Amino acid sequence: MSRIQHEKFRSKVMSADEAATFIEHGDNVGFSGFTGAGYPKLIPGALATRIRAAHEEGKDFQIGCWTGASTAPELDATLAEVDGISYRMPYQSDPVMRSKINAGLSDYNDIHLSHSGPLVRAEVLAPLDVAVIEVAGINADGEGIPSSSVGNNVIYLEKASKIILEVNSWQSLDLLGMHDLYYGFALPPDRREVDILAPGDRVGQTTYRIDASKVVAVVETDLPDRNSPFKPADAISEAIAQHYLDFLANEVKHDRLPKNLLPLQSGVGNVANAVLAGLQAGPFSDLTSYTEVIQDGMVDLIDSGKLTVASATAFSLSPEYAERMNDEAKKYRKNIILRPQELSNHPEMIRRLGVLACNGMIEADIYGNVNSTHIMGSRLQNGIGGSADFTRNAYISAFVTPSVAKGGAISAIVPMVSHHDHTEHDVQVLITEQGLADLRTLAPRKRAKLIIENCAHPDYRPALLDYFERAQKTANGQHTPHNLGEALSWHVRFLADGTMKS
Amino acid sequence: MSRIQHEKFRSKVMSADEAATFIEHGDNVGFSGFTGAGYPKLIPGALATRIRAAHEEGKDFQIGCWTGASTAPELDATLAEVDGISYRMPYQSDPVMRSKINAGLSDYNDIHLSHSGPLVRAEVLAPLDVAVIEVAGINADGEGIPSSSVGNNVIYLEKASKIILEVNSWQSLDLLGMHDLYYGFALPPDRREVDILAPGDRVGQTTYRIDASKVVAVVETDLPDRNSPFKPADAISEAIAQHYLDFLANEVKHDRLPKNLLPLQSGVGNVANAVLAGLQAGPFSDLTSYTEVIQDGMVDLIDSGKLTVASATAFSLSPEYAERMNDEAKKYRKNIILRPQELSNHPEMIRRLGVLACNGMIEADIYGNVNSTHIMGSRLQNGIGGSADFTRNAYISAFVTPSVAKGGAISAIVPMVSHHDHTEHDVQVLITEQGLADLRTLAPRKRAKLIIENCAHPDYRPALLDYFERAQKTANGQHTPHNLGEALSWHVRFLADGTMKS
Repeated sequence: MSRIQHEKFRSKVMSADEAATFIEHGDNVGFSGFTGAGYPKLIPGALATRIRAAHEEGKDFQIGCWTGASTAPELDATLAEVDGISYRMPYQSDPVMRSKINAGLSDYNDIHLSHSGPLVRAEVLAPLDVAVIEVAGINADGEGIPSSSVGNNVIYLEKASKIILEVNSWQSLDLLGMHDLYYGFALPPDRREVDILAPGDRVGQTTYRIDASKVVAVVETDLPDRNSPFKPADAISEAIAQHYLDFLANEVKHDRLPKNLLPLQSGVGNVANAVLAGLQAGPFSDLTSYTEVIQDGMVDLIDSGKLTVASATAFSLSPEYAERMNDEAKKYRKNIILRPQELSNHPEMIRRLGVLACNGMIEADIYGNVNSTHIMGSRLQNGIGGSADFTRNAYISAFVTPSVAKGGAISAIVPMVSHHDHTEHDVQVLITEQGLADLRTLAPRKRAKLIIENCAHPDYRPALLDYFERAQKTANGQHTPHNLGEALSWHVRFLADGTMKS
Repeated sequence: MSRIQHEKFRSKVMSADEAATFIEHGDNVGFSGFTGAGYPKLIPGALATRIRAAHEEGKDFQIGCWTGASTAPELDATLAEVDGISYRMPYQSDPVMRSKINAGLSDYNDIHLSHSGPLVRAEVLAPLDVAVIEVAGINADGEGIPSSSVGNNVIYLEKASKIILEVNSWQSLDLLGMHDLYYGFALPPDRREVDILAPGDRVGQTTYRIDASKVVAVVETDLPDRNSPFKPADAISEAIAQHYLDFLANEVKHDRLPKNLLPLQSGVGNVANAVLAGLQAGPFSDLTSYTEVIQDGMVDLIDSGKLTVASATAFSLSPEYAERMNDEAKKYRKNIILRPQELSNHPEMIRRLGVLACNGMIEADIYGNVNSTHIMGSRLQNGIGGSADFTRNAYISAFVTPSVAKGGAISAIVPMVSHHDHTEHDVQVLITEQGLADLRTLAPRKRAKLIIENCAHPDYRPALLDYFERAQKTANGQHTPHNLGEALSWHVRFLADGTMKS
């Protein structure tokens, strides 16, 4: 049976090359896609071909590229390779895209994921010329059946002047019913409360509203999401995860957390996977999750009955798990909810539900400031993503990293971070494989002692203590004593010598 | 008629000296007080006498001092002078208290005002041994009639083991009915939505619940709040205010704001007063405010009919206006609502209502990071207060400062701020008397050009441009180009030479 059940949409079916001709130089284009899930598979490539041809003719052709978050090489890399992106928001993690940003060839507006949709709704980010959105199908009412991510699709479909759809038959039609597409957002003074009181509550509908009169093209594909294979946890990730789980168990013991914890949020990656594996083996049950992405480990926790609800905005599964999700979506849609990122990352719900946030970082300093985005102050790594949406409003906010990088040449604990994404006022718990520092309630100098002793690698502890002691002797104030002439010298040394060690 | 209408409370009336004996060394004490309003007038002095006597006998005597925010000399200075405070949270602005913190003699936990109450409720900050709360009276049901600030009083009364009340007959009994004391906060997973959909909505009751069995002392006083006289706006404040008002008018013109704007929030001080004076003279009407404190200018706006509702947690009035408020509280309580700071600064309402935030700062850097708390990186000025509660969740977030300080020796725009309180991801508008930079949607290098051109003092523009251009030549990435060896050199120079000029 055709995935396109509505005549108005069927009549717009064309090739990706034809569809790409609706996108012009200077357009702002809102693409679906969040992590490697639910991004359009064909249009970006066809558009890149069109851009390359224009450039070969000496013509300007660049677009503003808006998404949910990171996508896959077929979108970010393909368009960045032909220098087709003048402006990127709100998040990326692609090596080619990143290199263009760091070369100064593309502007990147690195904003909180929960802020991107509202800025489009308020037309501060405007105009949105074209939305290019993947769907699993079009139903008989002309509504879109969502695929493996939601991201900013609702607002992009609403605000775009033109809509191009990619109907992807690789995506399971059984995903229908899993999504919670909220249409209640308004601009103030008409904004209302969102009635999500528990991670499993639903406030929206299951299909996208699409104004058929704006649809200029429909493209069919059956290409799979490009997700990354699952990496088995290493010893360092396992040690970090264990410190975190021990901390949570201690909070439960002291009646500061319920026995089944509170809704879990975690970033993507090795440590997050190790935490999920630790939860699988550990004592907690009746767990819930209110987070950005569903990883393999969460699927395992659902299978074992330990996790009852996982709310997110996208899947971020290994190819094996993605196939399984497609096969068994009907079963999992009882436990999994995919929502717009305005909901998954909404400060109102994160604070109300009391989310336990755990995110990766690049470095922290002795006073508890965290750098999530920059290598040595200037060079963008990925972006802030949703880390601050959760950190700032969470019940407990933790950050994790191995204590050293580059074979020990870089310390993840430094005198002063080279870029600030989460300030000392927001960071409550720091964890490395060395240990955990619970900073809640502590003044800066107390934090410094704890972070150096518990989290820094032993190779760097003496130098950190030395800095901290000398800073106290010379600083103009003892609240947060720094020696400003030396505070960033570790990074300067690394840039010059390739190591932070002196 | 007695202000104490309940026998259980009348039987506990005693002198402040007697009441202070209920406070012991090592106690955590939750005081009422927010700006110079509603703090206890007598107990802190009596306690200080007790502490001094103990110290003279060679005994340890220090307390943890928790409040709503800043207080007045009778509380912070009096206790700090005798080295009576080992730990202070969540905000202060007192010269003596500040000097003890900067001398390393008192620990200061400088956290978001909206986070202090929840941390006490969750018993992360615990135990709370004594609450010392000012009220205007005790009614016949044994409930407390609130005075001129609310702050954290609700949670302190709930969590404290012992309660000491100061019944202050200087405070008007006509304040009864002005307050919105919310008792609906719970810990997750039992937290619920807060049904405030407009600044004038009420969700609480007008009097404090007080467990009479915990009340160990009641002290009577008639001393006035210690508020600061109103300073007439200077030309620089007026210029800053005008840039902000022009910006808001332009947003209205482009349909990005309603004609009556959105609820206003502003910090305390000269610029805030100038903005309020500008609104008095300007074209906007039917204004509302959802903020922390009610200043003189808001009372004027209510008088002129331009402001219909002002919601806050405290008054911060000049002595003249405070007397007037006492005389006419019955009239003003139709337009003014005082709530717990958990409500006035709550991310849920600030985001929902679309608050327009405007806060002072110490310095900003060329990429839009803001320092609100530290002088030259180490020395505490006051604290972050509620600035980030509003900034982070506001509809538009602005920061204001004169472009230079100390007669031109300090530039408020620097290559890199010496302390980060609001990151580049959160700061949308920067304003000095030189002009305004609208940073929304801009990538870092675009922001830098605009901030240097529009906001920096002309004396510092060439040096800022020089830094920015050279940083781009040598940085390891062009996203946020910095020369880390030089980024903090302006502050280092000031500490050495007394000027940022080279």
